[in-house]
Amino acid sequence: MVPTIIIHGGAGDIPDGRVKGKIDGMKVAVKAGYDILMKGCSALDAVEAAVVAMEEDENFNAGYGSVLTLRGEVEMEASIMRGEDLNVGGVTLVKEFLHPISIAHKVLTDSPHSLLGGEGAKLFALEKGFKPIPPESLISENAKRALEKFLKHGEFGRTEIGPNDEGGVGTVGAVAIDSQGHIAAATSTGGMSGKAVGRIGDTPQIGSGTYADDHIGGVSTTGHGESILKYCLAHTIIKLMENGTDANTATTVAVNGMTSRLHNTAGAITLSKNGEVGVHFSSNRMSWAYIRDAQIFYGINPGEKFCDKYEPEK
Amino acid sequence: MVPTIIIHGGAGDIPDGRVKGKIDGMKVAVKAGYDILMKGCSALDAVEAAVVAMEEDENFNAGYGSVLTLRGEVEMEASIMRGEDLNVGGVTLVKEFLHPISIAHKVLTDSPHSLLGGEGAKLFALEKGFKPIPPESLISENAKRALEKFLKHGEFGRTEIGPNDEGGVGTVGAVAIDSQGHIAAATSTGGMSGKAVGRIGDTPQIGSGTYADDHIGGVSTTGHGESILKYCLAHTIIKLMENGTDANTATTVAVNGMTSRLHNTAGAITLSKNGEVGVHFSSNRMSWAYIRDAQIFYGINPGEKFCDKYEPEK
Repeated sequence: MVPTIIIHGGAGDIPDGRVKGKIDGMKVAVKAGYDILMKGCSALDAVEAAVVAMEEDENFNAGYGSVLTLRGEVEMEASIMRGEDLNVGGVTLVKEFLHPISIAHKVLTDSPHSLLGGEGAKLFALEKGFKPIPPESLISENAKRALEKFLKHGEFGRTEIGPNDEGGVGTVGAVAIDSQGHIAAATSTGGMSGKAVGRIGDTPQIGSGTYADDHIGGVSTTGHGESILKYCLAHTIIKLMENGTDANTATTVAVNGMTSRLHNTAGAITLSKNGEVGVHFSSNRMSWAYIRDAQIFYGINPGEKFCDKYEPEK
Repeated sequence: MVPTIIIHGGAGDIPDGRVKGKIDGMKVAVKAGYDILMKGCSALDAVEAAVVAMEEDENFNAGYGSVLTLRGEVEMEASIMRGEDLNVGGVTLVKEFLHPISIAHKVLTDSPHSLLGGEGAKLFALEKGFKPIPPESLISENAKRALEKFLKHGEFGRTEIGPNDEGGVGTVGAVAIDSQGHIAAATSTGGMSGKAVGRIGDTPQIGSGTYADDHIGGVSTTGHGESILKYCLAHTIIKLMENGTDANTATTVAVNGMTSRLHNTAGAITLSKNGEVGVHFSSNRMSWAYIRDAQIFYGINPGEKFCDKYEPEK
């Protein structure tokens, strides 16, 4: 199989001023994942590496730069799934770690459970040697401004698609297929600006934010979390592909079907078991990128597809 | 549409000594739900009423009688879904309330979010007037004994199917269709004996534990939570029905498919939009019951189907 990695950096009304930062950050992240694949490592390690890069980058709503709850705190969540055996790991209501996706990966490999939340996620992370950081160190200026704007003007529960949202669009995700034909998918987010304390979105819910099955393909989604989970967006795309629909059509039909039924927007990235790529969003913008055969394809506006040559790190 | 309600009281290796208590408790619960339907109320109110009855009954692993975490505490979760508009409500990591399903219902009607966990779920419940109770008051003697046995003999993560488990088999759920043809589904659980603090299972994850769509049908599942969520069991059944499979075949194919792929057991109850009933379990036992046309059907062993006359309360 030709190794391929595809990532997204969030769907929504991304302001013009934030386009460049997202595209630059995505190129760094997709290369980080592709480098792992090129070393012969697993799809699972590749999607983690790509998501880790975006969690470190304040241009994305995940890890550092996550949006804030009504109480002004960061509460992050992430999930990762291995298509070979359907094993999954997820965390939610995480406050004190830079990389929720790495804790989620550890849940997958080391816990009898699939999803840990709040205090339990923290206890598990500490036990596994993850270093806690002061929760305030995850808060960016953009995230503070986004909460201030939300408190003045926000329509509750819709900030992922609000036109004035500076911090809310940037859930990140990655899907990869490695040379062995194994598929993995991962998603990480800070949620939505002004969310209630304790709100759990689509990202850690398997079948909503993330899904991977070597027999079919892999998906990561972004957009209005409550709509995505009501529609089980990732699993809907998977089931369409299982029934013979190609990856791009399945992604388009499911995303548009969700928006038509629930009147909110979303986006998704998809790889089929044959390596077909699917990218679609019903929002105004979604940043995405993929690398295959030493070419980086990327875009952020509808219908857009740029191509750069991939230069491996020396 | 002929109003119908179907419920389950949990799948697993239910010991002989617990069969009668479960069947008696299920008859009370299914009648409670059916009485609501007969008054012309919604399917949503009916499934809540049936689940509330089982949350009060220590014969079931939900509400009072929930199993305990490794730390000896109750951490409950529940979800409810309205098929008309796909709206959902869920709570997880709840410690101080007898009826998680009623808080979940309130999340559905009163929150911009779909799932609240831990401290956030508690804050929401208090704000909505739910009365907290001492967490210890939810602990039954059976649950204590189940944890003791688990600590001595338990294989971690498999207690829902352990032969010695006295408290772990009894996740509860209900699916109803009302005279208007609207469908709702609800599920509530204490999880698995000896689970890690902060473990979130399939029950609050939409598409895994619960799903309802007026265009297709409704499902509630029970069994090994981590397997159910990896397989998105409820949504898998829904998608089979959407593609023309009848309710009972869809339930059977999906439950057996999960067990074949993931080597753990589960059960599910299903209603199609046309009122067809589906019941299947791959575990040794699952308690289930439904009422339609003033007849109560019920069973707990494979292939079993008893019938009583339904006598409405005077």
